[in-house]
Amino acid sequence: MVKIGIIGAGRIGKVHAESISKYVKDAKVKAIADPFLNEETERWAKTLGIQHVYKDYHDILQDSDIAAVLICSSTDTHSSISLEAVKAGKHIFCEKPIDHDVEKIKSVMEAVKRSKVKYQVGFNRRFDHNFRAAQEAVLNGKIGTQHVIKITSRDPEAPPVSYVKVSGGIFLDMTIHDFDMVRYLSGSEVEEVYAIGSALVDPAIGEAGDIDTAIITMKLANGAMAVIDNCRRATYGYDQRAEVFGSKGSVAVTNDTASTATLSTEDGVVAEKPLYFFLERYMQAYANEIAAFVEAIVKDVPVPVNVVDGLEPVLIGLAAKKSLAENKPVKLAEIKSLFDL
Amino acid sequence: MVKIGIIGAGRIGKVHAESISKYVKDAKVKAIADPFLNEETERWAKTLGIQHVYKDYHDILQDSDIAAVLICSSTDTHSSISLEAVKAGKHIFCEKPIDHDVEKIKSVMEAVKRSKVKYQVGFNRRFDHNFRAAQEAVLNGKIGTQHVIKITSRDPEAPPVSYVKVSGGIFLDMTIHDFDMVRYLSGSEVEEVYAIGSALVDPAIGEAGDIDTAIITMKLANGAMAVIDNCRRATYGYDQRAEVFGSKGSVAVTNDTASTATLSTEDGVVAEKPLYFFLERYMQAYANEIAAFVEAIVKDVPVPVNVVDGLEPVLIGLAAKKSLAENKPVKLAEIKSLFDL
Amino acid sequence: MVKIGIIGAGRIGKVHAESISKYVKDAKVKAIADPFLNEETERWAKTLGIQHVYKDYHDILQDSDIAAVLICSSTDTHSSISLEAVKAGKHIFCEKPIDHDVEKIKSVMEAVKRSKVKYQVGFNRRFDHNFRAAQEAVLNGKIGTQHVIKITSRDPEAPPVSYVKVSGGIFLDMTIHDFDMVRYLSGSEVEEVYAIGSALVDPAIGEAGDIDTAIITMKLANGAMAVIDNCRRATYGYDQRAEVFGSKGSVAVTNDTASTATLSTEDGVVAEKPLYFFLERYMQAYANEIAAFVEAIVKDVPVPVNVVDGLEPVLIGLAAKKSLAENKPVKLAEIKSLFDL
Amino acid sequence: MVKIGIIGAGRIGKVHAESISKYVKDAKVKAIADPFLNEETERWAKTLGIQHVYKDYHDILQDSDIAAVLICSSTDTHSSISLEAVKAGKHIFCEKPIDHDVEKIKSVMEAVKRSKVKYQVGFNRRFDHNFRAAQEAVLNGKIGTQHVIKITSRDPEAPPVSYVKVSGGIFLDMTIHDFDMVRYLSGSEVEEVYAIGSALVDPAIGEAGDIDTAIITMKLANGAMAVIDNCRRATYGYDQRAEVFGSKGSVAVTNDTASTATLSTEDGVVAEKPLYFFLERYMQAYANEIAAFVEAIVKDVPVPVNVVDGLEPVLIGLAAKKSLAENKPVKLAEIKSLFDL
Repeated sequence: MVKIGIIGAGRIGKVHAESISKYVKDAKVKAIADPFLNEETERWAKTLGIQHVYKDYHDILQDSDIAAVLICSSTDTHSSISLEAVKAGKHIFCEKPIDHDVEKIKSVMEAVKRSKVKYQVGFNRRFDHNFRAAQEAVLNGKIGTQHVIKITSRDPEAPPVSYVKVSGGIFLDMTIHDFDMVRYLSGSEVEEVYAIGSALVDPAIGEAGDIDTAIITMKLANGAMAVIDNCRRATYGYDQRAEVFGSKGSVAVTNDTASTATLSTEDGVVAEKPLYFFLERYMQAYANEIAAFVEAIVKDVPVPVNVVDGLEPVLIGLAAKKSLAENKPVKLAEIKSLFDL
Repeated sequence: MVKIGIIGAGRIGKVHAESISKYVKDAKVKAIADPFLNEETERWAKTLGIQHVYKDYHDILQDSDIAAVLICSSTDTHSSISLEAVKAGKHIFCEKPIDHDVEKIKSVMEAVKRSKVKYQVGFNRRFDHNFRAAQEAVLNGKIGTQHVIKITSRDPEAPPVSYVKVSGGIFLDMTIHDFDMVRYLSGSEVEEVYAIGSALVDPAIGEAGDIDTAIITMKLANGAMAVIDNCRRATYGYDQRAEVFGSKGSVAVTNDTASTATLSTEDGVVAEKPLYFFLERYMQAYANEIAAFVEAIVKDVPVPVNVVDGLEPVLIGLAAKKSLAENKPVKLAEIKSLFDL
Repeated sequence: MVKIGIIGAGRIGKVHAESISKYVKDAKVKAIADPFLNEETERWAKTLGIQHVYKDYHDILQDSDIAAVLICSSTDTHSSISLEAVKAGKHIFCEKPIDHDVEKIKSVMEAVKRSKVKYQVGFNRRFDHNFRAAQEAVLNGKIGTQHVIKITSRDPEAPPVSYVKVSGGIFLDMTIHDFDMVRYLSGSEVEEVYAIGSALVDPAIGEAGDIDTAIITMKLANGAMAVIDNCRRATYGYDQRAEVFGSKGSVAVTNDTASTATLSTEDGVVAEKPLYFFLERYMQAYANEIAAFVEAIVKDVPVPVNVVDGLEPVLIGLAAKKSLAENKPVKLAEIKSLFDL
Repeated sequence: MVKIGIIGAGRIGKVHAESISKYVKDAKVKAIADPFLNEETERWAKTLGIQHVYKDYHDILQDSDIAAVLICSSTDTHSSISLEAVKAGKHIFCEKPIDHDVEKIKSVMEAVKRSKVKYQVGFNRRFDHNFRAAQEAVLNGKIGTQHVIKITSRDPEAPPVSYVKVSGGIFLDMTIHDFDMVRYLSGSEVEEVYAIGSALVDPAIGEAGDIDTAIITMKLANGAMAVIDNCRRATYGYDQRAEVFGSKGSVAVTNDTASTATLSTEDGVVAEKPLYFFLERYMQAYANEIAAFVEAIVKDVPVPVNVVDGLEPVLIGLAAKKSLAENKPVKLAEIKSLFDL
C-alpha cells in the first residue's frame, strides 16, 4: 500500500483524492495540505478517510511514512516543491506543466536524474480510453507509416481574463496537452512549429496579450506532419478529437457523450452533446494515471510520462509562442539551444 | 451511514460489495455471508474493509447494527431469506427474480406490506444511463403518445445447459429484464403476450426444454404495443438496445463501446463492438441502484423498484411461457386469476 | 431498344416514365395511356419524348411495336389489364399488388404460365442499395444461419381516410412491401403469422375499419423468425430499416439522408432526418427495377420478381388480416388451402 | 433549350454529356469535338443523341445554333480556347483551372468583362449536397461568427508520375478545389498562406519535384482561419470532409457511402468505405453545376462560379507553392502584386 500526500486541495487535488479512494487499489491518501484550508475541505477529507489535513505541505514532506506526493498546487510552485520533494526522497506526481520557465524544469530534471525518485507528469489524456485506442492502432501498425496527425481541442468555456493573464498563454496552458498528444500518438518528436491565432472568442483575451483560437502545424522527426486546432470556447461542450492518418488508413477518435440516446422528431435527429468538460470526460483517465504512477513505484519500473515528457511540450509551446509573435516557422532546435538542451 | 450485510458472495454479491465501497457514499458493507466461503473470498473481503465474513447468513440477520441486506444468493432461496429478513426488520435489496413461484412472491409481498421495511428488486437496467435517457425523453413528452416500444436484448454467449435447466426458462431468466424495461419505458402495464421462439443457437438448449431465440409481442394498458427480440448468443457482444416511438417522434438508445475509435482501411470502416457483457455495460448501473436503495432508506421515501415491480415481470414471463407452449396470445388477467391477483 | 407503353399516368406511372428516360439505356417509352388525361400530362409526355398519349390503354396493347407494358393504373384494374396484356403478348411489369383477390392473381399466374411473356411485380425495395447490401451480406454468409429478421417501416404521413377505405387495409397496402422484404432478405417462405395493431395515429382510420400501427411476427420455413413494425405516420420522415441477425453476426441498414451535415450547438448534435418519402428514397430503386425488367426481356432470362413473388405477400397479408381479426396465429397453409394453392 | 457544344471528349467531357442528357432539362448537347476521336466515342455520342462529332473544335465555335460551350480539353488549352469562344460569342463553362499562368487567366478575365458571355468555372464541389448543406448552415447563421474552417481532402490513389509532372503541382492540381471550398464556405478571401508538405506516399513524386501530402493554413479577410490537409492516397477511398466552427457551434460534413449497411461480427462493427472517387461522389454535383450554368444563361443572371472565382484559387495555390519553397507564410497581396492585381 503506497501512502500518498497531496499538496494542494484545489479542484484537481480533490479529483485525485477521490479517484484514488475509489479506483486505485494499492494506494491510500494519508495527508493533504493547502494553505487556504477551510472547514468544508476538512470535512470532505474526513469522509475520504484522509488522516491528516495540513496548512503547510512541509508536514507531508517530513512524514517518512508517506512514499509519494501529488503536486497539485499553483503552477508557479510546481518546480520548487518538486525540488524539495526530491530532496525528501518522495516519489512525485506533478500536475502539468512543471513550470513555464525551462531553466526551472531543467533543474528539476537534473535533481530527479541524480535521485532515485519516480517523477511523473500529469498528462492525463494519455490515459483516456479513446486516445489510448488511437495510439494502440498506431502502435499495432494498423495505419502503416504515419502521414498526418490531427488534433481538435476546444474548451466549452473561456477562462476569466484574470486567469488568462497568469496562464502562460494558450500554448503553455491549453495547447500543451495537445502537444503532448502529438508526441504520444506519433511516438516521435516535434522539430518545427508554425502557429496562427487570434482572439475571436473574447476581445478581452486579446487585450490581455493572449489569443483564444489557434491553428498550429508541426513537422515531426519521423517525417509526418501534425496540426492542432484550438479554441477556448465551443458552445456544444468539450471537443476532444484526434485522427492519425497513414499509409494503410486512418484511426479517428471522437467525443464521449452522456448517453447514446437519439431523438428523431420533426426538428431533426438529435444526439447528445459531448461531455461538458474535463472532469466528466477524463475522470477515469485521472484514476488511470495515478494507478500507473503507483504501479511504477510498487514494481519499480519507469513511469509512463517522465520529466522529459514534461519538458518537451513546454519547448514546443515556446516555439509556438515565438512563431505566433514573429509569424514564421520556428525550429525546436532554436528553442533548445537557448537553454543548452 | 447505512450498514449493509450481503447474503451470497458469488459474482453479483461481489459486484455490489465493490461498487458500494467505490461509489455509494452513505453506505458501508459490514458483513458478507456465503456457505461456500473460501480463503480467496475472505482476503477479498478484507481488502474492501468488510469486517465480518460469515458462512451462515443468519449471523447477518442477527446483527442489529446492520440496517439492510442485499440478497444475492441463488434464486431458489430469495423468497425464504426475504421472509426471514423482513421478520428481522432489515431493509431488503433482492436480486431478480424474487422467485419463479408466484405464490412465494405473494407471501413476500404480503410480509413486506405488513412491515416497515423497504424492499427493492434488482432490475439494474433502470439505472443505466442509456435506458434512463430514453425514459426521460418519454416522460418529458418528447415523443408524444406512445405507439410502439421495441427492445433488443442479446447475450454474448449462451449459458451452459446445466444452468439453462435450473434457470426457469429464457422468459424468467433473461427476458424478465426486458419485460421490466417495457414497464419502465412505457410506465404502463402489459395486458397480453404472444411469444414465438426456438433453439437456434444450441440444440442442447432445446433438448433441455428451453429456447434460445425469441420474439415476444405485447399489448399494453396505455394502448401502445411492445416487441422484444432475444437471443442467447450474439457473436459481436452484449446487444442491448431500445426504441420508443410515438406521435411526436422516436427515441432510440444503442450500445456503449470501449472507445469511440474508428479505423478506416482498405477493408472498411471499423468501429468497436458493444461492451462484452453485463459487468462491463452495467457496472455503473449496479452502483446507481444501490445508491437509490440507500437513499430510500436514509430519506425514508419509496424505493424506485418495489416488490410489485418484482412480481409483474414474472407474471409476464409466465404468460409468455404459456403463449409459447400453446401458440396463442395469453392475457395477463388469465395468469393473475390463477393466483388470485 | 425495348419499346414500352405505360398504362396509367398517375404519380407512379410518371416516376417510371422519367426514370426510364434518364437511366434505362435499352428502353424507350413510346406511349402512355390514362382515361383522365389532361393537357399538363400531355405537355409533360412531350418533354420526355413520348410519342403517343392515349385515353384508352387498348391503343397501347394494339401497337405491335410495343414489346412491354407497365401497369400503373388503380389496383382494381391490375389483374384484368394483366390478362389482356398477356393475351396481347406484351411483357408486363405490374405495380404491386397484382390484386387483393387471390383468385384473380391465380388467373393471372396461370395465364402467364401458359404464355411466353415476362411478368414482373413492382416490389421496388428489392432494388434499393441499402436492402440489397443487407441481402448480399446474408447471401454471402456474413451473418451465418439466420435467426431473426427485423423490419421497421413507417410512412411520414397517414393517407386520407378515403384512400384507406379502398386500400385493402394496411397489410395489403403498406405491409405488403415488408412481407416481400422478409421473403427477399431471408430467401425463405413465411409459414405462420401473428399480428397485433391499432388505430393510434388517426381514429378515423379505426372507424374506417383499418389500423395504422401494427406489429407482425412470423415463423419462416428456414427456421428463422421475423418481425415487422409498421406505422402510417412518423413525424421525422420515411423510416425504412432492416436487420438480419444470425449465428455469425448481424447486418443492419438504416435510412438515407439528404446530406451528411451535422450541426453541433448548445441545443445538441443535430443530423438530418431520413429522406421524406418513397419518391426521394427509392427513385434510384424504381429505375433499377425497370432496368432489370428490360434486361430480362432483352436477354430472355427470368425476371427477378415474378408472379409468385406477387402472390405470396398477398397471402401473408390475408393471414395477418385474419390473425388480427381473430387474435391468434394463422398458418399460411390455412390461407392457401382456401384457394387450392 | 440551350444547345451546347463540348470541347474535349475525355473523361470529364463525357461525364458532362451524360449528365446533361439525364438531368439538365433545358439543355441539349448538339456537338462534341476532340482531336483524338475514335469510333467508340462516336458510337457513344450517337446513343446520347449528339448530332455532330468533330475533330476540330472550331466547327463548334462556328455553329451559330450553339449557344454555349463546355471546355473540357487539356488544361494548357483552356485559356486560348476560352478567348476564341468569347470572340465567337459563346457562353463558356470551363473546367478548372482556367490556366496555371495568371497572365493568361487575366486575359480571359478581361475578354469576358468586355463581352456579354457568361463564364463559369468548374468547381463542382460547390454543387455537392454535403458541402452545400454546410454552406447553408453558415449562411443561415447557425454557427455564428466563423472561427475555423477545416477541410480534409484525400484521393484514393496517387496519379502516375507522368501526370504529376504536368499537373502544375499538388496545390494547383488538387488543393485548388479545397482553396475554392475555403472561399465558398467562408464567403471570404484568403489573405495569407503557409504550407508544409512532403512526398510520403510515393518518393517518385518527390523526385518529380512535387509533394503528395500537405497541410496548408490560411488567414482569411473575415478574421477566421482555415486549414486544409491533403493526401494523394487514402487506402479507404475518396475522403472529402469539411467543418466550419464558429461562435454558436459547428457544422461538419463527411463522406457518402454506397449503402448504410453495418455488419456486426466477432471482428467488429464494419460500415462501408467512402465512395471510391470523384465520379461516384460528385456525379450529381456535375449535373447540378451545368444546370446552374444553363439557368444563368436562360434567366440571364450571374453565374454562380465566375472567372474571379477561377482566378483566386490559382493565386492561393501560387502562394502555397512559394510558402512551401521558402518555408514561410506568404501574403496573397504579394502574389497579386506580381501580376498587377
